[in-house]
Amino acid sequence: MPKLSTRANKMPASPIRKLVPFAEAAKKKGKKVYHLNIGQPDIHSPQESIDAVRNYEEKVIEYSHSAGHESYRKGLAKYYQNIGIDVDHNEIMVTTGGSEAIVFAMLTCMNPGDEIIVPEPYYTNYSGFANQAGIEVVPITSKIEDGFALPPISEFEKVITNKTKAIIICNPNNPTGYLYSKEELYQLKDLVLKHDLYIFADEVYREFVYDGEEHFSAMKIEGLEQNVILFDSVSKRYSMCGVRTGALVTKNKEVYETAVKYGQARLSPPSLGQLAGEAALETPKSYFDSVYNEYINRRNFVIEELNKIEGVFAPMPKGAFYSIIQLPVNDSEHFCQWLLEDFDYQNETVMLAPASGFYATEGLGQNEARIAYVLKIDDLRNAVKIIEEALKVYPGRV
Amino acid sequence: MPKLSTRANKMPASPIRKLVPFAEAAKKKGKKVYHLNIGQPDIHSPQESIDAVRNYEEKVIEYSHSAGHESYRKGLAKYYQNIGIDVDHNEIMVTTGGSEAIVFAMLTCMNPGDEIIVPEPYYTNYSGFANQAGIEVVPITSKIEDGFALPPISEFEKVITNKTKAIIICNPNNPTGYLYSKEELYQLKDLVLKHDLYIFADEVYREFVYDGEEHFSAMKIEGLEQNVILFDSVSKRYSMCGVRTGALVTKNKEVYETAVKYGQARLSPPSLGQLAGEAALETPKSYFDSVYNEYINRRNFVIEELNKIEGVFAPMPKGAFYSIIQLPVNDSEHFCQWLLEDFDYQNETVMLAPASGFYATEGLGQNEARIAYVLKIDDLRNAVKIIEEALKVYPGRV
Repeated sequence: MPKLSTRANKMPASPIRKLVPFAEAAKKKGKKVYHLNIGQPDIHSPQESIDAVRNYEEKVIEYSHSAGHESYRKGLAKYYQNIGIDVDHNEIMVTTGGSEAIVFAMLTCMNPGDEIIVPEPYYTNYSGFANQAGIEVVPITSKIEDGFALPPISEFEKVITNKTKAIIICNPNNPTGYLYSKEELYQLKDLVLKHDLYIFADEVYREFVYDGEEHFSAMKIEGLEQNVILFDSVSKRYSMCGVRTGALVTKNKEVYETAVKYGQARLSPPSLGQLAGEAALETPKSYFDSVYNEYINRRNFVIEELNKIEGVFAPMPKGAFYSIIQLPVNDSEHFCQWLLEDFDYQNETVMLAPASGFYATEGLGQNEARIAYVLKIDDLRNAVKIIEEALKVYPGRV
Repeated sequence: MPKLSTRANKMPASPIRKLVPFAEAAKKKGKKVYHLNIGQPDIHSPQESIDAVRNYEEKVIEYSHSAGHESYRKGLAKYYQNIGIDVDHNEIMVTTGGSEAIVFAMLTCMNPGDEIIVPEPYYTNYSGFANQAGIEVVPITSKIEDGFALPPISEFEKVITNKTKAIIICNPNNPTGYLYSKEELYQLKDLVLKHDLYIFADEVYREFVYDGEEHFSAMKIEGLEQNVILFDSVSKRYSMCGVRTGALVTKNKEVYETAVKYGQARLSPPSLGQLAGEAALETPKSYFDSVYNEYINRRNFVIEELNKIEGVFAPMPKGAFYSIIQLPVNDSEHFCQWLLEDFDYQNETVMLAPASGFYATEGLGQNEARIAYVLKIDDLRNAVKIIEEALKVYPGRV
């Protein structure tokens, strides 16, 4: 029997998915499981998108242009212009989810063995994409006691080598909920220009910014136009993760044209997803207002309630819909599995994502977990109560 | 400004796409262009799929399982069982088009620098996927005078090295229309077992087989169950290229589970495309009968008419809807460009795909072009007439 490739053996399993069998077993036993572990929101997709799908009128579901339907790209260009990002439709490539945009950027800008710096904890799938592209993820640690702010530039300088080609910043951040400021991005500017690097800017949670703060896009850093590649997605913005419609945006023509070549090999992004995405551009402000209100209520509720539990610390996230919380346990992976396997409160339990999987540095995050506040307040109330009761009896409590 | 990666600079541009600007310019001048260059059929998608899209009833367009909706995989398993391929739904991973299945298989089975053997001329995008996976495509030449049959096994033996990990076979073949026989596949079996290789079997044109011949799937080669990875797609079978719904099928559990890990990183294949794909499983036999009749008429017509032109040789394809034809020119790329730029017959012209782009060996295919007979008979008639008239006056005719 032929062997698997060495790289495939190194492909990281998602830290969340490891627990899925335990969640399934719990459900089979009749336990209700509150999923605080995943980013699949319960918010309805915009009616405009659902209607566009339901009114589909073509007879042949054809390929689109490899960079996406021109009408959709023109619509996206307007969307960006309205939020102060100066791009035209020839600087926007529609991709199969934000995931594909990241892979294409890595392939376009980085050779096998090259290094990309990422503040940890970070979106785990970056490691999977890096495996595909044959590149190395080099973490620098952001800390819960700083609210997961950008580590000092001196920390970046320490790990830069002649293989460093890019820095990836998720803003607002999954998994921490941190919102990087304009000032932090300008600190990166100097570093990036000094070492001739790319900035990969993952801004798929752009609309989820709270407390009157403003999102500052890496695309707006003056003098960095040739270095920035923006990754975007309709998944979270419009709560339609299943359409697999994202975008790679850059003013760097060489990068754009080469990314499109990778896109040509796979022919086209999904046509129906683009239909839903284009229709979503007509989503009224009232939709975002109500989504915003829902998330801010959920955030305020869950963070406040979690912090009331003895030994739990949950920093207030400024964006996205995640938070990394500290738990009074010495092995959160074990705790999360125990919640599913051995615990219930009134026949209900909670699934959390152990944070160690969001760190590349061995040993970090072992007393932390990521929560996604994508459930209704009533469900969040029950989930927090379960965590509280669980910590009273968990044998590994510290 | 940071540089592109070396590999990105090596990413091949599609041989077809190079001519697109010339086709666009021709259309701007008011010329009608018959597209024999692309595989986008004009056949309607099944009404079952269109209806499924139009009756979409969910409120949230959610992620699916990373390996695809279970109900769809179960339906696909039945489809395969009905055609004699013994697989269950846990051996089927739904992918974003057949393209993604190929990339995931390369990543799973091959390390950077490893080699995959392919009979040329071959589907050009294999080279793009190989670039992404950092592997090398090693061609062995199949010949128009043999109707593009499988080259002798001795030719494979000549190029096998310790880096050879797989052979990829497209059956029925794009671009040649050749249908590999059961005997040819069993010849490969011995070779594959001897050298412990994988067979990557691209069978997306399975339903397009003519003249009473039967398609023999590589999945049916006895004793090769652990070596075969099947790539599939709904794009051509149901004429819905835009849904981006394919599959990776294998009885090798290690390969399957690892491919799913790559799938988990990108979260899920398109949900709406899966909806259309699942509905398409209910497509009545009458649909395929009428599609079959349409294609066989087109094939018979276009091949017969082309062979009437002096100096043109078009082997009769047994499957798919392509043929590589020989032209009395010494540089078909120039001829194809000239057709668009400098020629018209009654203000109409034809776009062909120069065959050199389908060969990896430098210098081959320069008097050949690929045609896709995806147009109505009347259009094919006009297209052939244009080619005939063009060859009368083409300055590079030999």
